[in-house]
Amino acid sequence: MMRLAALQMKSIAGDVAANLGRIGGAAAEASLQGATLLVTPELGITGYGAGDVIRDLAEPADGPIVRRLQQISAETGIAIIAGFAEREGNAVYNSAVYVNGDAAPTVYRKSHLYGDYERGLFTPAEPSTRLFEHRGVTCGMLICYDVEFPENVRRLALAGAEAVLVPTALPAGWSGTFITEHMIQTRAFENQVFVAYINHCGSDPMFSFAGLSRVASPDGQPLAKANSADETLIFAEIDPGAFAISRLENTYLKDLQRPHR
Amino acid sequence: MMRLAALQMKSIAGDVAANLGRIGGAAAEASLQGATLLVTPELGITGYGAGDVIRDLAEPADGPIVRRLQQISAETGIAIIAGFAEREGNAVYNSAVYVNGDAAPTVYRKSHLYGDYERGLFTPAEPSTRLFEHRGVTCGMLICYDVEFPENVRRLALAGAEAVLVPTALPAGWSGTFITEHMIQTRAFENQVFVAYINHCGSDPMFSFAGLSRVASPDGQPLAKANSADETLIFAEIDPGAFAISRLENTYLKDLQRPHR
Repeated sequence: MMRLAALQMKSIAGDVAANLGRIGGAAAEASLQGATLLVTPELGITGYGAGDVIRDLAEPADGPIVRRLQQISAETGIAIIAGFAEREGNAVYNSAVYVNGDAAPTVYRKSHLYGDYERGLFTPAEPSTRLFEHRGVTCGMLICYDVEFPENVRRLALAGAEAVLVPTALPAGWSGTFITEHMIQTRAFENQVFVAYINHCGSDPMFSFAGLSRVASPDGQPLAKANSADETLIFAEIDPGAFAISRLENTYLKDLQRPHR
Repeated sequence: MMRLAALQMKSIAGDVAANLGRIGGAAAEASLQGATLLVTPELGITGYGAGDVIRDLAEPADGPIVRRLQQISAETGIAIIAGFAEREGNAVYNSAVYVNGDAAPTVYRKSHLYGDYERGLFTPAEPSTRLFEHRGVTCGMLICYDVEFPENVRRLALAGAEAVLVPTALPAGWSGTFITEHMIQTRAFENQVFVAYINHCGSDPMFSFAGLSRVASPDGQPLAKANSADETLIFAEIDPGAFAISRLENTYLKDLQRPHR
């Protein structure tokens, strides 16, 4: 069981120091309020709509950005998930990293890039399953468009994930509203997992974001949600034991394996 | 393009003649109102909660029940999807049949049986994809619990289905409300298909049903819905051409095939 915090964030495009500072402030505040994990949006460290400069800001997973996140985590006493541009050789991935103090970080690379903008900046990764334990809860990560494919969440759930943590950058618009209001909760319900879907808000030079960050529980209900506009911290208790009845009534992972007799 | 009708139905448990009569009446009414296809609930012909007698009422797909449905279809000038217990050798399947006058019927057998009640009555089929054309729309069928697995709808959509027609028997309760209000619309949106999810209402000797039948369009919106209580006909225009913008913005089937570059 853990208390999760999420920062619906207004990143400053291209200003890594400012964004790391904002994440550091949120980590301190979330830790004070009893959370042990802070989730932040997709590419929150570079800004999502920073354009080509994102490739210049890309760093390896053992570079200064991740080291700084580890320092913040150690100083504030809270683990952090943050989105950054990850360089490996000539490739740049749209990645998210889980840091917990000095422990080895866990990096997830986005497999399903959305639209020409992302495909011009990043290399798509092979779909991957990198689980980690946080306070007794088995967690996995996806990024934005990845979670819209039921195949990706299913893969993590079948591997044992109890919570799927999803930094995102969802633009405002009718599709965005549908995704937050219906699809995220369905992903939680159909796999009987928690899904934290944490977005940007406001605008950057290229995009206007939907906000509406939320944490859905295995019964498909929103445990916590943010509004469409404000930079804000939201909190949710991630307690798989509290949803035993839902798992008992909705045995999708077991029933996926047929035949039944 | 077609005008679809659906009968949210109160079947009489074990009374095949009465249920065929009710379907016949609905077919006549729906045809008068310009529909060319009528969808009815899971096991609507035997009643869903009729218990062991369902096995006694099971017939082969070329038996009197399907022949009577073909007669009704020919007389009323509307195609019909109806749920019945299908016998083949020693096996009994939970099946749905599409009949269109004297043309050869299309039969779909449920692959994902729900709970001990169904597993005690039926043999689960291998997941199958049996598409048919109706008025220029490529259609597939699933039955109830099948549609709760994203894998099943995806399989039909990748094979070319534009509309997935789903006789169901969804009990009242919080899970049922979640499925109708969120999951069915998500299945439509994530595959950019129409989903018609047609339920029983009221009670039979074993179950109390949720009603809330609906037709969702590729943009995830409900095109038509029924309330929780009443036996009623609902209508929806199934026009894939009207959702070109939704398909353009939500390219899941294409983007599922990676890599993007």
